Amino acid sequence: MDKDMDISVSVVMGSDSDYPVMEEAVKILKAFEVSHEVFLTSAHRSPDRTSDFARKAVERNVKVIIVGAGAAAHLAGVIASQTTLPVIGVPIDSTALNGLDALLATVQMPGGIPVATMAIGKAGAKNAALFAIRILSLTDAELRQKLDAYIADMARDVERKQEDLVKKIRL
Amino acid sequence: MDKDMDISVSVVMGSDSDYPVMEEAVKILKAFEVSHEVFLTSAHRSPDRTSDFARKAVERNVKVIIVGAGAAAHLAGVIASQTTLPVIGVPIDSTALNGLDALLATVQMPGGIPVATMAIGKAGAKNAALFAIRILSLTDAELRQKLDAYIADMARDVERKQEDLVKKIRL
Amino acid sequence: MDKDMDISVSVVMGSDSDYPVMEEAVKILKAFEVSHEVFLTSAHRSPDRTSDFARKAVERNVKVIIVGAGAAAHLAGVIASQTTLPVIGVPIDSTALNGLDALLATVQMPGGIPVATMAIGKAGAKNAALFAIRILSLTDAELRQKLDAYIADMARDVERKQEDLVKKIRL
Amino acid sequence: MDKDMDISVSVVMGSDSDYPVMEEAVKILKAFEVSHEVFLTSAHRSPDRTSDFARKAVERNVKVIIVGAGAAAHLAGVIASQTTLPVIGVPIDSTALNGLDALLATVQMPGGIPVATMAIGKAGAKNAALFAIRILSLTDAELRQKLDAYIADMARDVERKQEDLVKKIRL
Amino acid sequence: MDKDMDISVSVVMGSDSDYPVMEEAVKILKAFEVSHEVFLTSAHRSPDRTSDFARKAVERNVKVIIVGAGAAAHLAGVIASQTTLPVIGVPIDSTALNGLDALLATVQMPGGIPVATMAIGKAGAKNAALFAIRILSLTDAELRQKLDAYIADMARDVERKQEDLVKKIRL
Amino acid sequence: MDKDMDISVSVVMGSDSDYPVMEEAVKILKAFEVSHEVFLTSAHRSPDRTSDFARKAVERNVKVIIVGAGAAAHLAGVIASQTTLPVIGVPIDSTALNGLDALLATVQMPGGIPVATMAIGKAGAKNAALFAIRILSLTDAELRQKLDAYIADMARDVERKQEDLVKKIRL
Amino acid sequence: MDKDMDISVSVVMGSDSDYPVMEEAVKILKAFEVSHEVFLTSAHRSPDRTSDFARKAVERNVKVIIVGAGAAAHLAGVIASQTTLPVIGVPIDSTALNGLDALLATVQMPGGIPVATMAIGKAGAKNAALFAIRILSLTDAELRQKLDAYIADMARDVERKQEDLVKKIRL
Amino acid sequence: MDKDMDISVSVVMGSDSDYPVMEEAVKILKAFEVSHEVFLTSAHRSPDRTSDFARKAVERNVKVIIVGAGAAAHLAGVIASQTTLPVIGVPIDSTALNGLDALLATVQMPGGIPVATMAIGKAGAKNAALFAIRILSLTDAELRQKLDAYIADMARDVERKQEDLVKKIRL
Repeated sequence: MDKDMDISVSVVMGSDSDYPVMEEAVKILKAFEVSHEVFLTSAHRSPDRTSDFARKAVERNVKVIIVGAGAAAHLAGVIASQTTLPVIGVPIDSTALNGLDALLATVQMPGGIPVATMAIGKAGAKNAALFAIRILSLTDAELRQKLDAYIADMARDVERKQEDLVKKIRL
Repeated sequence: MDKDMDISVSVVMGSDSDYPVMEEAVKILKAFEVSHEVFLTSAHRSPDRTSDFARKAVERNVKVIIVGAGAAAHLAGVIASQTTLPVIGVPIDSTALNGLDALLATVQMPGGIPVATMAIGKAGAKNAALFAIRILSLTDAELRQKLDAYIADMARDVERKQEDLVKKIRL
Repeated sequence: MDKDMDISVSVVMGSDSDYPVMEEAVKILKAFEVSHEVFLTSAHRSPDRTSDFARKAVERNVKVIIVGAGAAAHLAGVIASQTTLPVIGVPIDSTALNGLDALLATVQMPGGIPVATMAIGKAGAKNAALFAIRILSLTDAELRQKLDAYIADMARDVERKQEDLVKKIRL
Repeated sequence: MDKDMDISVSVVMGSDSDYPVMEEAVKILKAFEVSHEVFLTSAHRSPDRTSDFARKAVERNVKVIIVGAGAAAHLAGVIASQTTLPVIGVPIDSTALNGLDALLATVQMPGGIPVATMAIGKAGAKNAALFAIRILSLTDAELRQKLDAYIADMARDVERKQEDLVKKIRL
Repeated sequence: MDKDMDISVSVVMGSDSDYPVMEEAVKILKAFEVSHEVFLTSAHRSPDRTSDFARKAVERNVKVIIVGAGAAAHLAGVIASQTTLPVIGVPIDSTALNGLDALLATVQMPGGIPVATMAIGKAGAKNAALFAIRILSLTDAELRQKLDAYIADMARDVERKQEDLVKKIRL
Repeated sequence: MDKDMDISVSVVMGSDSDYPVMEEAVKILKAFEVSHEVFLTSAHRSPDRTSDFARKAVERNVKVIIVGAGAAAHLAGVIASQTTLPVIGVPIDSTALNGLDALLATVQMPGGIPVATMAIGKAGAKNAALFAIRILSLTDAELRQKLDAYIADMARDVERKQEDLVKKIRL
Repeated sequence: MDKDMDISVSVVMGSDSDYPVMEEAVKILKAFEVSHEVFLTSAHRSPDRTSDFARKAVERNVKVIIVGAGAAAHLAGVIASQTTLPVIGVPIDSTALNGLDALLATVQMPGGIPVATMAIGKAGAKNAALFAIRILSLTDAELRQKLDAYIADMARDVERKQEDLVKKIRL
Repeated sequence: MDKDMDISVSVVMGSDSDYPVMEEAVKILKAFEVSHEVFLTSAHRSPDRTSDFARKAVERNVKVIIVGAGAAAHLAGVIASQTTLPVIGVPIDSTALNGLDALLATVQMPGGIPVATMAIGKAGAKNAALFAIRILSLTDAELRQKLDAYIADMARDVERKQEDLVKKIRL
């Protein structure tokens, strides 16, 4: 937890082995120049650290918390239960069950404490950052412009890839 | 689409048979006095109406869109692809597969267009509204106070129910 | 939490609606005359109450904690992370997914913090109590005798039911 | 979209990374000398391009549309909702869930808008083309003859492989 | 098998207990005035009848075959292997597994013999008929007009239901 | 189909790519000196060959038919519907769904036509042969003696492996 | 265990609550006049009774054992490991998981000890008896004639039901 | 079974190929200096050896039995049915179904005989040992101190890894 600057988005994960997945969120936040931090804590192995992080997030001026976790992925729910900030969960495929366990443990939150769940794995981590940006864009016109540009570029990219594909097929 | 007043949260669903589920979201929004509308449109049966809704949401000053859908639940994704607003998806159990189809069709969005997915059914609808309120609370101190009070009351409610349960068991 | 007497087994659940399932555990504990309590707390709606319960269990001289929870069932894991007592989890079928969500969220604990998971629902609640009794029997010869008698009676019961079944078929 | 010639079958996919799977459809269409095109568009990243494609397909004289997509595979359904042509969906295994997500998101279409779903992956892509040929054969006797020959050859191929297998086992 | 008139669509099912589901297909065919028949045959209990039906369908001038079956649903695949007509499969939920068995047994056809699979149950039966109509519309302009009208009506129906829903909520 | 000698067990498979799995059955049959053949036929690609095989099996004096198939595995059911011999099905993992499709398509036979289903893959192929041998042992005392010896050897093998494991751990 | 007469098929189940399912097997055995018994024993609650039954089955001249069990259905495997007779397993849907647990616990036997698994529930129980009859028919020509007649009647029954269905539809 | 010394925890497995998974349990037991043995026995291939082991465990003064098994994993249940000791089950991923079969066959025990189930694979094996230690700690203050230290170290390890991760990201 960096104390000297304002952090808009905190990217939390349960294990350093989750970083290659959660890096997709970090890349998007960097590309959109959104201030962020990477924070490692485990719902089960470091419960105090997790509580402490969750309870201080509002006063630290964090706006959105992204949480990646695998297996019986409790981390996002545990954090969401101790803050009023929006918490976005990214299920990580780290067991024999292909991430189905992490997906259900993240998304099936009982009524009262919501976790906004994304797809399993890298696509989910990327989309978690894009969803955080959609939230921040509600009060940041410049960020929304970047998002508009990003979306327009995705559409153009499809056209570019069409051309490449047609060329490749003809060869 | 109500044109005369500001709507913070739009509660969208694919079929009127989804209303008993999505009503849980409406109840929460009413309880928190968050302006909202109920909008019926189908990704498949009324694609133009859906596009029109999604594309006008930003200019109509909607802040968050909640979308409930069952089966091959495309509605949340289709709306998310045509707006930069945060879109929250509620999978609805409306087929033989117990909502697993709606869950996967809502949550497994490819990288680029996020849908914040909640639990299947009523718990998910309730949490969708609470998540929208978490987002709106980022810039609405009064709403955050209500949310703090709501969360504190949930905790007290557990204690009250403990007493009731102990009484019931003793009888 | 009863403060005046020694409690060997604490039967914890996330919602009073879980009681009809967890009552199966209570019945067994009563039949074996094992001191017990029923405690209601939610991992998400009352996190402080949950932490407080978990952290005081050892000093309160509780020996085994049985935890029933449904949906994204985090309660057993959250308690297990804050005590060194054996924690037994009972997944409860309380969503559209037939308890598969609760099962995976309970059993797929990452390495470091174990939760001993039982079957979904009433059979699991009953077996949770029987498993607690197996643990307590390690240092309680009288309790083991009761367990031996219980097991012998189950075997005899099969024979009795065979006779009843044969009679019923002949009619 | 090739404007200069008549295209009977349009093979659409959501990402160029789907081409190695969808190529199985292209191979069959080539072998049967059915005019076709390969078109790249994403339900989520290029919704306008997708709508435009779907809405012009009838007037472009396309007869059948084959659509491959992975993850929360909405593309086939989105196209089917904007055309009256038969749309054949091929679920692609592109996430941790082995294509189960794509299968359910493609096949579980609500009443009103059908998508004819094939098996996950290459077998499905191949069969999508063969199904398109079955449709086109209804009014093309020459094509039906080719199909009859293809089917007869598959049966003979089984006999040939029996001989090879027997030889191999004897060695 | 009615021998005296031309049948465009044959609606086949494995058991008379499947009729309440397959009736949804019949209703659509009636509404669109498409000539059709209802044919009962089982892949397993009446294999000769099934073969005979499949092999004569082309010469009987049937255009499309719709097949509903539950459990290890082989009927659609068995028919598809003995005709060159397009075969549409409707998985029926008739076992403990909620139709997942019928879905996989219908859709996961190996390369060579396609079955166009619809959703499990009534939505699938309805869509099977609509898909048959899409096929027949390729060479029947009047039928396509009916289909256009049907689709336009579905869209208008969404608007009508919006009004009803708003009224109902206000009450 | 070897016409010159008596074949007790016919090992059938839908594709030559299934042989590495079905070879496990062949190995057991060889080890027990049970006469057998390997027969390749596809329910879908060679339906006549399949019917012909099934219908002649009794008169050819085959006693048990073992059938391996993957995907929408119809082959065992199709054969079972055209013979009164016991048919044993081996689901083969040949698609993205890990053999779950083949398992359900083989085991979930409707009432009337049974298929005796084994485990997915090599263990299932091996057990199919051992089950055939259990059937043949009913009237072949010598074969039962071999089976008794085989079972006794499996038990001894566990003890041998215990010794090896203990040695290995100590190193 | 009836000691006075020869029993060809033993129908075993883990609980008397399984009888309504297993009765389907008994009905078939009665209809085919195959001598049989109904035996209740639990793999877990009466392990000695189970072992004793399994080990004496050969000498009691039983030919085939049918075993129905639910949940973590170990009974068929436990019996199969203590006899050389063919053991047929019927998974029973007795938990929240719709019989998927019983199916996998019955069918996924490791190499060495086979259990011939039937469909979940009543269809499986019926087919278990029919499969036992297929085995017994190998050495009982009269029984095979009954089986041939049964199969022929099933085919005729389809035709009769076709007539009934056509009448019903016309009304 | 080592006869000369007191063994607190017996680590049992169905096959020597399970050892690389179960070794995780052994490592923890060694680290905590808990006396233990490794015992190989199969529910199906060596049922007598299994019974003998289970029935003698109490008199051999074993306190806790850990059982790893894959596929239709009956071993833990079979042992639990023949002892009153606490039995901990570790499902092992050894088939095409990713350990889901072993999980359900282990955890879904019917009421009467409990098996305390851990996660699939290595995390489960590790946690099985930690759970055994939680049980033994109830009457061994020194062991509880080690457990407290282990848990404290896990929490510190998270902080250490945070530092490493931050360094790595900055590079």
